[in-house]
Amino acid sequence: MKNKQVILVKKPEGLINESHFSIVSTDIPTPKEGEVLVKNRYVSIDPYLRLLTEEPTTFSRGVKPGSRMESWSVGEVVESKSPVFQSGQYVLGYLGWQEYGLSNERELRPIDPSIASLPAFLGVLGMPGITAYLGMFDYGKPQAGQTVLISAAAGTVGMTAGQFAKMHSCKVVGITDSEEKCRFLLEELNFDSAINEKRENLEEKLKQYVPEGIDLYYDNVGGETLDTALLFLRKNSRVVICGMISQYNVKTPYAIKNFERLHSARATLKGFIVGDRTDRWPEAIRRLEVWVKEKKLKHRENVFHGLENAPKALHSIFTNAPIGKTVVEV
Amino acid sequence: MKNKQVILVKKPEGLINESHFSIVSTDIPTPKEGEVLVKNRYVSIDPYLRLLTEEPTTFSRGVKPGSRMESWSVGEVVESKSPVFQSGQYVLGYLGWQEYGLSNERELRPIDPSIASLPAFLGVLGMPGITAYLGMFDYGKPQAGQTVLISAAAGTVGMTAGQFAKMHSCKVVGITDSEEKCRFLLEELNFDSAINEKRENLEEKLKQYVPEGIDLYYDNVGGETLDTALLFLRKNSRVVICGMISQYNVKTPYAIKNFERLHSARATLKGFIVGDRTDRWPEAIRRLEVWVKEKKLKHRENVFHGLENAPKALHSIFTNAPIGKTVVEV
Repeated sequence: MKNKQVILVKKPEGLINESHFSIVSTDIPTPKEGEVLVKNRYVSIDPYLRLLTEEPTTFSRGVKPGSRMESWSVGEVVESKSPVFQSGQYVLGYLGWQEYGLSNERELRPIDPSIASLPAFLGVLGMPGITAYLGMFDYGKPQAGQTVLISAAAGTVGMTAGQFAKMHSCKVVGITDSEEKCRFLLEELNFDSAINEKRENLEEKLKQYVPEGIDLYYDNVGGETLDTALLFLRKNSRVVICGMISQYNVKTPYAIKNFERLHSARATLKGFIVGDRTDRWPEAIRRLEVWVKEKKLKHRENVFHGLENAPKALHSIFTNAPIGKTVVEV
Repeated sequence: MKNKQVILVKKPEGLINESHFSIVSTDIPTPKEGEVLVKNRYVSIDPYLRLLTEEPTTFSRGVKPGSRMESWSVGEVVESKSPVFQSGQYVLGYLGWQEYGLSNERELRPIDPSIASLPAFLGVLGMPGITAYLGMFDYGKPQAGQTVLISAAAGTVGMTAGQFAKMHSCKVVGITDSEEKCRFLLEELNFDSAINEKRENLEEKLKQYVPEGIDLYYDNVGGETLDTALLFLRKNSRVVICGMISQYNVKTPYAIKNFERLHSARATLKGFIVGDRTDRWPEAIRRLEVWVKEKKLKHRENVFHGLENAPKALHSIFTNAPIGKTVVEV
């Protein structure tokens, strides 16, 4: 038996696509004492993966051309040299784009598939859900009656963050890029307004929907959207920089014209990376699982089939992202 | 007896200068119950005054053409209808560019000229000193061993903030615009490095002086200096936006290219206005006065003579600012 893997073959310039990857076949590794062999069922497709293909940063070790692509995954234990895990058990790990992954027992999280379908553990119950949780509760601190603006609002982080703001009785406005996503935000998630940035003028719509200004901008995209949002900051508002998906595939970053608003609004801006705060993950996971079980937190997943389609799936989230979490069934 | 006043005659476009003001003569007002008439001795010249000449903002009511210019001042009580103040007493108030000002007793602060010369109460012991105090202690939070970068470092706010960072055993680097100011920062204030941004390449010098990066950037200027400083942010660093003097006289704001660094550095940025936090002023003033008395905090003032020179003094702080605080002797 062999292990199918997806390898980065060259460092992308601009938009990442299938030409930057290839499929290889390697030996299936054998676990040593304390290790666990996992057969991946789903691998995760996330915007930050684009950053891994650049030079190593404080975000990541980076994935060099010739190396297997990294990512979160959920799978089944097929061989365990750990007393903590048994064959057949479902786990979440950072095992990458491959069929079989080896992990130290300390780096796997057992998951309970009665809570939600397996792909949800890569979305609302995984890193993106935890990101929204920490971004809102540790940094954004939405308060009843406040106005919250969220970009990439139909992505997993955005839709989860928006639901947290609704739970706190905020007025919530989502920025997204299709009519279907706007309908989803309004009808399924009860957002107060939704803006299709591709068709509508963001500044005009914000003037209409949030004449009072915004108390919190939860940003997942950066660039021009962020620049426009800054114009609407109220006094003592907060800006949470969670991600900057609009900038991951560009060579020359968008230059921010309205930076001064951070001063005149006496804003507090916080950039954060969820991986820095693993101390906060257990609480976040506990509460996310309860809310999902009780149907207080909606989520959605989109499944690409076949590991060989992982590069196509990654390309799609930068070009024609579906609602919610994108995963690949291995 | 008449009251000489400086009036804003037109809204400036670009750099503010003497042509935007005129001198008028009005009647000296008479205090009512609870009011105090003050003869100004020194009026304050500060970068934010330029902003008052624009449309009213959340910073200020604004000064409309035809109105007397606002500012802090120190002076002597000449007539009091308040039990709290006696004739001959020195006070600090927000009395504007004029010889005589009327104030409610609640809006004057008695000052003790044995602590420092009167002009110092408009600088290190006044609004600029309190600004540095709150900016560093409430928001910047310098910690021993950290690296702190300060722009406009030879201005009152910058030099006071830098001395606070030195008190906390930080490595302190100042950005300024002349050789004389660099010498002052190094020799008088014991800064670890000083950069003359007019002659030296800021990015090159920062690579040389702070190869470890910076933990705190205390910004008084905005624009390109800020943009370059962002490149040097360390993980979990802080950016305090105190002012943006480089942007006050420009029509098209400088666009910030390195905004993304606020995310990758997991930075916390805070914009603040000292006037929002008058609850913190008594503590700040108490401690500033002790430090000045004990010679733990150095300061410097530059005096222009004659109220009619206030417009020239304001122009000078944007073009050829001296070290420290600029005031006008009335």
